[in-house]
Amino acid sequence: MSFSWPVRVYWEDTDAGGIVFYANYLKFFERARTEWLRELGIGQQALRDEVGGMFIVSATQVQYHRPARLDDLLLVTARVLEAGRASLTIEQRALLHPPDEGMPPLLLCEGTIRIGWVDVRSLRPQRIPAPVLEALQGRA
Amino acid sequence: MSFSWPVRVYWEDTDAGGIVFYANYLKFFERARTEWLRELGIGQQALRDEVGGMFIVSATQVQYHRPARLDDLLLVTARVLEAGRASLTIEQRALLHPPDEGMPPLLLCEGTIRIGWVDVRSLRPQRIPAPVLEALQGRA
Amino acid sequence: MSFSWPVRVYWEDTDAGGIVFYANYLKFFERARTEWLRELGIGQQALRDEVGGMFIVSATQVQYHRPARLDDLLLVTARVLEAGRASLTIEQRALLHPPDEGMPPLLLCEGTIRIGWVDVRSLRPQRIPAPVLEALQGRA
Amino acid sequence: MSFSWPVRVYWEDTDAGGIVFYANYLKFFERARTEWLRELGIGQQALRDEVGGMFIVSATQVQYHRPARLDDLLLVTARVLEAGRASLTIEQRALLHPPDEGMPPLLLCEGTIRIGWVDVRSLRPQRIPAPVLEALQGRA
Repeated sequence: MSFSWPVRVYWEDTDAGGIVFYANYLKFFERARTEWLRELGIGQQALRDEVGGMFIVSATQVQYHRPARLDDLLLVTARVLEAGRASLTIEQRALLHPPDEGMPPLLLCEGTIRIGWVDVRSLRPQRIPAPVLEALQGRA
Repeated sequence: MSFSWPVRVYWEDTDAGGIVFYANYLKFFERARTEWLRELGIGQQALRDEVGGMFIVSATQVQYHRPARLDDLLLVTARVLEAGRASLTIEQRALLHPPDEGMPPLLLCEGTIRIGWVDVRSLRPQRIPAPVLEALQGRA
Repeated sequence: MSFSWPVRVYWEDTDAGGIVFYANYLKFFERARTEWLRELGIGQQALRDEVGGMFIVSATQVQYHRPARLDDLLLVTARVLEAGRASLTIEQRALLHPPDEGMPPLLLCEGTIRIGWVDVRSLRPQRIPAPVLEALQGRA
Repeated sequence: MSFSWPVRVYWEDTDAGGIVFYANYLKFFERARTEWLRELGIGQQALRDEVGGMFIVSATQVQYHRPARLDDLLLVTARVLEAGRASLTIEQRALLHPPDEGMPPLLLCEGTIRIGWVDVRSLRPQRIPAPVLEALQGRA
């Protein structure tokens, strides 16, 4: 099972092609990852203050299949693909919420995001705190 | 009574000062205006397709009182301050949703946004469609 | 005399209206302010490291006259309108660089940005460091 | 030989981690691609008006090696990796411009961007206009 988060397309997300600017799907993906962590009891600002660490993105890979437009409602999913000691690979999708009840959601884009855990000050890689890893692996 | 919309602060919204980048409040304000219009039955993409017109921002004025940070939950309000035939002035506020139930929300920033109605192709000013104006003035 | 900085319009700056998204002029204004400070020998990252302070925007006010489009070349100006001990008001304009040599630049938008000096950690207002104020006032 | 374009890091590009927000490298890459096309005599707004087509990004893949910070000066490169009839794969890098003359630039991030040519209205894939392909292949 993957986590899913609704994202509405506003003017700020679009470009002169009339569609969502492709770089913005990375923002949508991150909103979904953040809400997923929050649902698992993991607050990033709190972790930063208490543990002195934070997640940092080390690689992204995205395929764009169909464009989204102003006012579209997307569903953005997140699930753990691989979990190591210092980094995680998350699989994510953006789907168009179907206007009609009976229709399936349409895949707009999909990708994988690799995130590592680093010390806030030095930005050096560190082990992901155990409670974070345990909470996430319940989702693998 | 003013309309109110929740906005969560993500990494994308912050800057190296550790706070929300001030230009992004204009995005938050617009999300609230869009959802307010949607609640009133006004879809901007639909209006564009059907009437060939769109709202365009002609002036903004914002005062920043207190910063917001990563993971903060904001409430963004919108209400009509002035309504003319071709333009509207909307008053908007961003409040910090209080962490404790008993506390009042904290004012982070406030401003006024003047929006005009223009033809999509020529970008020339036009009269705001009557149904839009009527729906909005019910909120004045 | 005011400082002037060229800004090119890319896809990232536009929205589905086919024009530059209005909030992005605040970014263009800031790029010009930053380059202007740099020209005066003021590096913001260096100041942050050495003095522990930074500029923070406390108020913005912008009027939008004409839209800019993809590939347009803008000239963004900055000059001191008012200088106090703890805050400055900067007047800024975005002009369309004329395609023809003989034509004057076209005013796209203009506004004033008030910036204050704060302690990096507490975000409390402080006096603007004397060398910064002196460098800027040579431009008033 | 690859094309190279300078990009300065401003407040707008950073996040609360104190570094450039990773999604923004896609913007930096696109600025470099746009200036590269412009240098080859290809104006995207002009092509849109005349030919009714535009480039659209169909896949991105980026590895992040080292972070950039406020005020850093980057060099962003672009070169054709593969050229087909309807799509191109561009290899891009962001390098930190060395503060000292004698030092080599430091690789910050690198990736490949696949772009396709589509009809502006239908967003359907089309053959890349011959003059565009010829101009670009001189760079392969």
